[in-house]
Amino acid sequence: MTEEYDTLQHESLEEHLHQVQALLAKQRLVEDLVHRQEGPRQDLVETLVHKQNLAELQKKLDELHPADVAHILEALPLDERLLVWDLVKAERDGEILVEVSDSVRESLIASMDNSELLAAAGTLDTDEIADLAPDLPHDVIQELLTTLDTQKRARLQSALSFPEDSVGALMDFDMVTIRADVTLEVALRYLRRLGELPDQLDKLFVVERNDQLIGVLPLKRLLTTDPEATVAAVMVEDFVSFQPDDDAHEAAQAFERYDLVMAPVVDTQKRLIGRLTVDAVVDYIRESADADMLSMAGLKEEEDLFSTVWRSAKNRWMWLAVNLATAFIASRVIGAFEGSIEKLAALAALMPIIAGIGGNTGNQTIALIIRGLALGQITQANAHRLIAKELAIALLNGLVWGSAVGAFAWLLYDNPALGGVMALAMLLNFIVAALAGIFIPMTLERLKRDPAIGSSVLLTFTTDSMGFFIFLGLATLILL
Amino acid sequence: MTEEYDTLQHESLEEHLHQVQALLAKQRLVEDLVHRQEGPRQDLVETLVHKQNLAELQKKLDELHPADVAHILEALPLDERLLVWDLVKAERDGEILVEVSDSVRESLIASMDNSELLAAAGTLDTDEIADLAPDLPHDVIQELLTTLDTQKRARLQSALSFPEDSVGALMDFDMVTIRADVTLEVALRYLRRLGELPDQLDKLFVVERNDQLIGVLPLKRLLTTDPEATVAAVMVEDFVSFQPDDDAHEAAQAFERYDLVMAPVVDTQKRLIGRLTVDAVVDYIRESADADMLSMAGLKEEEDLFSTVWRSAKNRWMWLAVNLATAFIASRVIGAFEGSIEKLAALAALMPIIAGIGGNTGNQTIALIIRGLALGQITQANAHRLIAKELAIALLNGLVWGSAVGAFAWLLYDNPALGGVMALAMLLNFIVAALAGIFIPMTLERLKRDPAIGSSVLLTFTTDSMGFFIFLGLATLILL
Repeated sequence: MTEEYDTLQHESLEEHLHQVQALLAKQRLVEDLVHRQEGPRQDLVETLVHKQNLAELQKKLDELHPADVAHILEALPLDERLLVWDLVKAERDGEILVEVSDSVRESLIASMDNSELLAAAGTLDTDEIADLAPDLPHDVIQELLTTLDTQKRARLQSALSFPEDSVGALMDFDMVTIRADVTLEVALRYLRRLGELPDQLDKLFVVERNDQLIGVLPLKRLLTTDPEATVAAVMVEDFVSFQPDDDAHEAAQAFERYDLVMAPVVDTQKRLIGRLTVDAVVDYIRESADADMLSMAGLKEEEDLFSTVWRSAKNRWMWLAVNLATAFIASRVIGAFEGSIEKLAALAALMPIIAGIGGNTGNQTIALIIRGLALGQITQANAHRLIAKELAIALLNGLVWGSAVGAFAWLLYDNPALGGVMALAMLLNFIVAALAGIFIPMTLERLKRDPAIGSSVLLTFTTDSMGFFIFLGLATLILL
Repeated sequence: MTEEYDTLQHESLEEHLHQVQALLAKQRLVEDLVHRQEGPRQDLVETLVHKQNLAELQKKLDELHPADVAHILEALPLDERLLVWDLVKAERDGEILVEVSDSVRESLIASMDNSELLAAAGTLDTDEIADLAPDLPHDVIQELLTTLDTQKRARLQSALSFPEDSVGALMDFDMVTIRADVTLEVALRYLRRLGELPDQLDKLFVVERNDQLIGVLPLKRLLTTDPEATVAAVMVEDFVSFQPDDDAHEAAQAFERYDLVMAPVVDTQKRLIGRLTVDAVVDYIRESADADMLSMAGLKEEEDLFSTVWRSAKNRWMWLAVNLATAFIASRVIGAFEGSIEKLAALAALMPIIAGIGGNTGNQTIALIIRGLALGQITQANAHRLIAKELAIALLNGLVWGSAVGAFAWLLYDNPALGGVMALAMLLNFIVAALAGIFIPMTLERLKRDPAIGSSVLLTFTTDSMGFFIFLGLATLILL
């Protein structure tokens, strides 16, 4: 992809979406009219309006950047989405498929036949085909492989072999290489002969025979140094590089810390195999933040806003099942104290306060710990300091809020002992929440699992069950 | 900042942090030994070890990139953080202060006197000073302003006037401008005379008199076109630009969609005033994702992992107070049914299941809606389709899970009517959760408030109170 993306006018995306939606609404109106006239006769005027409308929509789509068309497709319900997709020129199908989210891509690909898919994939670079591949039918991929030349086929096959969160899955192959023994003058002439350079290119890669990467030549050095100098004299030999099986998350952090625009990807023998660019990193950062947020809320995978009811429901079931199981266990804790509750129904009214506040304070701790783990700021050496700090906060909060809640219960039920039990249970559940808020994400991390997923449900389970147990247990011991 | 950041070795950050922590632990050990020897006599050997240790630490720090030193400072408890901060060379203070998070920056600045702060700020560019300014004492800023030349002072003052989430607050002033009537040859010679180019520079800005921006000249065009051509003939006239009061969130989306590396910032008369670069955008994306996550969990502001107990506690109080208030209201809903609970204590054990699952399913809907709103995919035109879809899912889930839960309650308490009440209450609360999950974030958005903040607490309040009310109300009507 070496198009001049920068040449686009920056217009409000909202405006584009609004225009398309208005055209679609008009379209629906016309169709309704046509359908209402039962029988085969169609009014000529209406057919014309219909066609003119679609032509206007098509023109609008043709003017838009592929990323903007992708955005509009994401925002449309399935029927309108497929109508718009049909209007998109076939030669743009590929670049738009690359831009849409996985779930929307699936819905678009499902509407295309194999020859359309092959044609769309044919307009793409190897790394882009690799992005699409998981959603393409197996026979389309097989046929694609036969149409590629040896180098591209090898690249596609290797790109397909890297796991989703690795540098290999994000890299592309649009790099420009040069030899160390030539002068900058020669390098400049070489670039001019190339005629066109890839996007996001801010350095040339200096390679020896066998693609051994020995340095990088930043374009800004190339532009500011005397052209008589050799590449070897000007190149930078101490540069950030990645290997294809490096963790994408860590690579993204390196891009962020060192303000990189692009970096070479090399194999264990330092042979150049690709490059990682900041636009791929930005997409990755955004997508992981989105995925984290959705998975924290208990959605199994990215969900298309307008996917079918059945698919959406299934996407949410696993989490609901887990929550139901934990809720049942908490419910059995309460069940064990039904005798106490029959004697003093106030316990039933007060117990959700203890459990709820415990869950809230624990989730605050979890958020801090997950962020600290993601940034690599929590280590063996400082974990005990963190625990001490969170316990101190729990103690302070437990005393302050516990007293307030206890006083409230005392006044409400005119029962000082009930107030005391409430205050003590609150304090203890604050401590449970602090410990659970630290240990649950840290344990998941140590088990090499993503602490963002599941921490919150485990915590709520702990604070609910323990909250009910502590409060009802204390009440049974002291009050009854 | 035109340093060669790319020249850094990409080493494991974990390794750096580990080495510093090991040196600090050794240091503590030595100090403990020294302290244990009561009286004034200090063992010469130990003093030497002590000094040697600090020298080793200092050497390690000197080798690190400022962003890596910042990272290490973030991960250290306050006492060790200040020890390390003292070892950092004074001339590096400025660039490191720019890299650390707001809360850690405060702790570092609190340990510096005005002359140290002035010296540190003196090493920075105007846009970087603007980043630090909110944390600097007022008199330091005043004195800084007097040391700057007219242009820089004007820039600093205007940068300080932009709100936090605007393009103006993210932009810098490191741009290279050129006239349209010169040839590329002249442009190349001009760059060579400059000797050094800013980081992240992928295009020159073509300006007329009065800094009127009329085009951009991508470096890749400069490098691949015949040097005899004029800038006017080669420049791109249709480019993405921003204004300083544009929303940073929308600018970040434009960078993401159009794969930009940098873009000009112009005023309403199209006069060039600065540039926005992808590294500032990446930092912004990461920081907003972090802030969203923390505020969703109920932390008022970014919290330093090792801030004092008192500060941390206060940071969490507002949210706890809000939750406590809503928990009390939910508790009063239960209180209204205490008579029913005394007669049938099973209600107390079962009611948290209804409320809890309602909260979980509602939060799934909220996560989807917040993401859709952030991406601009939810509009007036498609909102009713979304509502219909979420209601259908709620109905489906309510029937499936409601039946399962009802059957469980029936078996457990051998009471078919109780099972029926449970199933019906579950179904109804699923519908409440779906509606609340859509309307709460959309209402906050329409009120120009961040839907990520507060949506979840309002939802949980709704599903708790309504869940208790529906279940206990139905039980009272049907069972008692």
